[in-house]
Amino acid sequence: MRILVNERGAARLLARHLWVFRRDVVSGPDTPGLYPVYWGKRFLALALYNPQSDLTVRAFRFRPALDPVEALLENLDRALHRRLPHLEREPEGGFRLAHAEGDFLPGLVVDYYAGHAVVQATAHAWEGLLPEVAERLKPLVQSVLAKNDAKSRELEGLPLYVRPLLGEVPKQVAVREGKVRYLVDLLEGQKTGAYLDQRDNRILMEGFQGERALDVFSYAGSFGLHLALGFKEVISVDTSAEALKRAEENARLNGLTLQTVEANAFDYLRNLEKAGERFDLIVLDPPAFAKGKKDLERAYRAYKEVNLRAIKLLKEEGILATASCSHHLTEPLFYEMLREAAQDAHRTLRVLERRGQGFDHPVLLTHPETHYLKFALLEVL
Amino acid sequence: MRILVNERGAARLLARHLWVFRRDVVSGPDTPGLYPVYWGKRFLALALYNPQSDLTVRAFRFRPALDPVEALLENLDRALHRRLPHLEREPEGGFRLAHAEGDFLPGLVVDYYAGHAVVQATAHAWEGLLPEVAERLKPLVQSVLAKNDAKSRELEGLPLYVRPLLGEVPKQVAVREGKVRYLVDLLEGQKTGAYLDQRDNRILMEGFQGERALDVFSYAGSFGLHLALGFKEVISVDTSAEALKRAEENARLNGLTLQTVEANAFDYLRNLEKAGERFDLIVLDPPAFAKGKKDLERAYRAYKEVNLRAIKLLKEEGILATASCSHHLTEPLFYEMLREAAQDAHRTLRVLERRGQGFDHPVLLTHPETHYLKFALLEVL
Repeated sequence: MRILVNERGAARLLARHLWVFRRDVVSGPDTPGLYPVYWGKRFLALALYNPQSDLTVRAFRFRPALDPVEALLENLDRALHRRLPHLEREPEGGFRLAHAEGDFLPGLVVDYYAGHAVVQATAHAWEGLLPEVAERLKPLVQSVLAKNDAKSRELEGLPLYVRPLLGEVPKQVAVREGKVRYLVDLLEGQKTGAYLDQRDNRILMEGFQGERALDVFSYAGSFGLHLALGFKEVISVDTSAEALKRAEENARLNGLTLQTVEANAFDYLRNLEKAGERFDLIVLDPPAFAKGKKDLERAYRAYKEVNLRAIKLLKEEGILATASCSHHLTEPLFYEMLREAAQDAHRTLRVLERRGQGFDHPVLLTHPETHYLKFALLEVL
Repeated sequence: MRILVNERGAARLLARHLWVFRRDVVSGPDTPGLYPVYWGKRFLALALYNPQSDLTVRAFRFRPALDPVEALLENLDRALHRRLPHLEREPEGGFRLAHAEGDFLPGLVVDYYAGHAVVQATAHAWEGLLPEVAERLKPLVQSVLAKNDAKSRELEGLPLYVRPLLGEVPKQVAVREGKVRYLVDLLEGQKTGAYLDQRDNRILMEGFQGERALDVFSYAGSFGLHLALGFKEVISVDTSAEALKRAEENARLNGLTLQTVEANAFDYLRNLEKAGERFDLIVLDPPAFAKGKKDLERAYRAYKEVNLRAIKLLKEEGILATASCSHHLTEPLFYEMLREAAQDAHRTLRVLERRGQGFDHPVLLTHPETHYLKFALLEVL
C-alpha cells in the first residue's frame, strides 16, 4: 500500500514542499489514510492521502517510520511541546497549538482558549484519529471541541459538524491577552473563534499613548482594547453590528471605553478626511481582499486606497499599524503597496517593525503557503 | 540662492526619496551648503547641496524653515531624543545616535560607545557644522571623535582625517551588549569601530543553549561571545588573524572561551562537511558579497553556497542565524536564496524570526537605500 508520484511530484517533495496534487499522482490506494510516497523505488515521504481530493498527498515526514500514525502524532506532540512554556506562563491566554502544514500536521488546526481546545480537521485522514488527538490534548485542557464545520471539508468528502470530543465545552470563555481580556464563543464565532495570529501585534499596541486612535476593520475590538489603555479616545470601525456589540462587551469586561462605528471603512475614512480629522495612531486589519490570485490586482488597489487614506489622517510622527492576511499579496508586494501609498500622499514612512504571524503560526520557507500575515508598524513623517 | 531641479528630480522628492543626482539639477549655487530646492516656483525641500558631487542634492526636510542650519540640527536633536531612553538604560552600551538618511541627516553617522561618540560626515555641508554637532552631543558623552577617513569623502572634495572634536578620546573602550562586553578601538578599527546594526540580533543568541556552535565570518567574535554563554564549544572562523586575536581578547574579558580558526569560510565549511561534523547552531554574518548591482549574480551564488553548506552541517532542529548586509540582495532575494539552499539540501527551514537592522538604524520605505540588513533565524528540519 503505497503512493506513486511522477517526477514533478517527486521534485516538489524533494524540495520540501508538502503537497502533491492529483495530476502528479501515478497510483495509490483506494481509501484515504496515511501511506508512504515513492518515486519509482525511492522513498520520499509519509503523507496524508485522499484520492477524492485534488490535494491528494500532504506529506508530514520525510523519513520512513514503522508506525505512520504514531509518527504523525509525534509531530503533534512536538507542536504541543513548543507551546508548553507559553501555556504554563499564561494558562488563561490564547494560543494556536497546532498550525497544520507549519507544524507538519497538514489539515489540522488546534487552538487553545484559556484551558479549552478547539480542533479543526480538513484532511480526510484525520477523521478517524480525532479521538487520539483529543487524548494527546487531555493533559493540557479541560475540554476539546471538534469544530468541523468548514466548507472545505466537503471537498474532502467529509461531513460538517460541531461536537465535543472531551470534557464539557463552555459556550464562552474569557481569554487573557497582554493587559486585557476578551470573550471567545467556542461553539459559534468565526473560524475557531478569534484571530490568534495577531496576538503579539495587538499586545504591541500597549506600548503607545496619545489622544486619538482609530481601529479600522475592528471586528470584536481586539486591537482597540489594547489601544484604549493608552489613548483618550479610541474609535472602532466595522461593518458588522454584531462584532461591534461584542467589542462593547469586551470593553465593559475590561472597564474600558470604545467608541464603535458601524460603517464601510472606505467611506468612513473618506468622511474623516473631508472633516479634517487627525489621529495619533491608526490600525488597519482588513479582511483578505485577495482570496485568489485572480483578485490580486483589485485587492492591491483596495489595500493601497485604505492605507493611503489612513496615512493622510495621521498627524506628523503618527503611527500606522497595518496588516494584510492575503497569502497572494506577498510580503514584497505589501511593502511596495505601502511605499506607493506614502508617495501618493507625499509622506515618508519610517519602519519601526516588520512583523508577521506569531511564533505559534510557524512558517516553512520551503512551503510558502504557510506564510500569509504581514504586519508593519510605521511612523508617518 | 536656491536649487532648481527638473521634473524627474521633482518627482523623486515628491515621492519622498531624499536624493537628486546632478543630471536632474537645472541650476544651483556655486558653493556647497544648505539650500531650498524648487521645481519652477514650487518649493520641494531643504537639502544638503554639493555641486562637486554626483549626488548633488540630499533633502533633509520637506517644509520650509527660516533657518536651514537650525532645521537640520533639529533633526539631529530628534534623532538623539529617540535614543535617549536606551542610553539612559544602558550608558555603557553601543548605539547609533544618527543614521544618516534614515534620520533625515544625510551623510552624517554618529555612533555611541559607552559614553564616547564617533562622528562620520560624508556630505560636504556638514564639514562646517561639526562643532555644532559636537555641541549637541556634549550633554550625552565625554568625548566626540571625528573619524573622517572614509574614502567616499574624496568624491565630495573633502580631506581625510581623524581628530577629536570634544573632550579626551580614549584609545579603547569596553562596550556592554546584553550579558557580555567587547572592546572597541575608537581611533582605529573598521568603520566607526563595531557593527551596531546587529546588536539586537547578537543578544538574541543568548536565548540558545547546546553542545556546539559555529560563528562564521566572526570578525572580533561578536556573535560568538553571546553563544559562549550557552554552548559548550564555540568555534569562531575568520580570515583575519588580527580580528581573531581581538575575539580571544574579548573572550578573556568575559571569562569565556572561543576556539578561533583562521580560514576561508567556504573551504572550512567544506572540510567540516567532509569530516562529518555537526552543529547545534551556526551563525553566518558574511561581508557584503554584492557591493554593486553588477556583482549580484555572483554574490547570490556565494550567499547560497555558504548557506547550503551551513544547512548541511546542522543537526535536526538545529538553528541557522544568517544575515546579509548587501543592499542589492533585497529581502525577497535573500529569502529566495535561503529557500533554494534548503531545497538543494533537501531540508526544511522553519522561520523563527525575520529581522533586520536595529531600531537605531531606521529604514525609510520611501528611500529604499536605508534598508540593507537582513537577518533570519531559522530552524533546520
